[in-house]
Amino acid sequence: MKLYNFFRSGTSFRVRIALNLKGLSYEYLPVALPKGEHKQDAYRALSPDTLVPVLDVQGDPDQALLSQSMAIIEYLDETHPHPPLLPADPLGRARVRALAQTVACEIHPVNNLRILKYLGSTLQVTDAQRDAWYNHWVLEGLQSYERRLQDLAAQRAAAGLPPSVYSYGDTPTLADCCLVPQVINGTRFGLKYENLPLTMAVHEACMKLPAFQQAHPSNCPDFTP
Amino acid sequence: MKLYNFFRSGTSFRVRIALNLKGLSYEYLPVALPKGEHKQDAYRALSPDTLVPVLDVQGDPDQALLSQSMAIIEYLDETHPHPPLLPADPLGRARVRALAQTVACEIHPVNNLRILKYLGSTLQVTDAQRDAWYNHWVLEGLQSYERRLQDLAAQRAAAGLPPSVYSYGDTPTLADCCLVPQVINGTRFGLKYENLPLTMAVHEACMKLPAFQQAHPSNCPDFTP
Repeated sequence: MKLYNFFRSGTSFRVRIALNLKGLSYEYLPVALPKGEHKQDAYRALSPDTLVPVLDVQGDPDQALLSQSMAIIEYLDETHPHPPLLPADPLGRARVRALAQTVACEIHPVNNLRILKYLGSTLQVTDAQRDAWYNHWVLEGLQSYERRLQDLAAQRAAAGLPPSVYSYGDTPTLADCCLVPQVINGTRFGLKYENLPLTMAVHEACMKLPAFQQAHPSNCPDFTP
Repeated sequence: MKLYNFFRSGTSFRVRIALNLKGLSYEYLPVALPKGEHKQDAYRALSPDTLVPVLDVQGDPDQALLSQSMAIIEYLDETHPHPPLLPADPLGRARVRALAQTVACEIHPVNNLRILKYLGSTLQVTDAQRDAWYNHWVLEGLQSYERRLQDLAAQRAAAGLPPSVYSYGDTPTLADCCLVPQVINGTRFGLKYENLPLTMAVHEACMKLPAFQQAHPSNCPDFTP
């Protein structure tokens, strides 16, 4: 498999984690977003939305190009079921997907590079306003994530169980693949994470695992500080 | 089942379509977003992110509250498999999810009510700037959707087949549940849809189906013009 991606892209980071959790090797093909490589014809031919990541799951000569990080991770989970990244029961799967979508539909889309650029260049907001925008949506979203974890912890407590190690249960899931890159992205923007004890405990548990560590931007071949 | 939702919410509209396609009846519980009912304690207790929709799939006394529209629709598809809203093969499922996420992760999150409010009230952008923002992200996203449909049509053409009736194949999927509310929302904002022939043909095919028509905001019990 070939992964077209960028070290600092949060959605790329999600897929790198999933590939590592599955123990799948892949060729790392960097797409330099700051240089606009994703807007050039060569990449546009691979990616209908000119976004990273794209995973080519077949390679030459029969390309099969997948995009949208959550769709890619579900594909990997369906085609390489062990270890699973979603629970077996429909209610559990709905909970994990809702956690993942809290990051992928509520936080990340509002704060990615093209949105922040539009705010600065087209709407001419100040750097302080742009940073406040970023902080507002990330913290609001992570507070929702925390409340979801609180609800799940309460259900477990009712059954005499401690809070789960990861976002849902005691093995990493799609939700963790989405959470960790978002937390790390916020750190780069200087965000202070307060009143998010369950979320941050999950983040720290994930970052003890080689699959998450090795996917970290600083361990990517195209990393620059 | 009970659906907490709002007639004009695009994410609510997605779930209404899926429930109708599955032939599932549900109790319609309106949450008036313009009055801020979603921020009040009663609703906050049901919804960790204070967003609509929430689907209670069990009802009294054993509530099972699901949120995030794509997670809800996947749950419905897993628990009520006929008619399917995702193809059977992993590659097809990845294509449908990527189409759905083009709407749900690239277009809708940047343009929903709370974002437009923040632009106007906190960033003090003009109405014209806010409308330009809306148009920019909707059209950019739908152009991506169109390119995805073009790629799929080219694959079908290579096999001697005409373009599919709906976004993926000849029955409606999760992708159509996401597309139609976005197109209709844009119409409300006066968007002109040009150079989107495949996308608009799919939209029109969907709107011939009672499942889509009955889910339309104007057919909801809480509708006001």
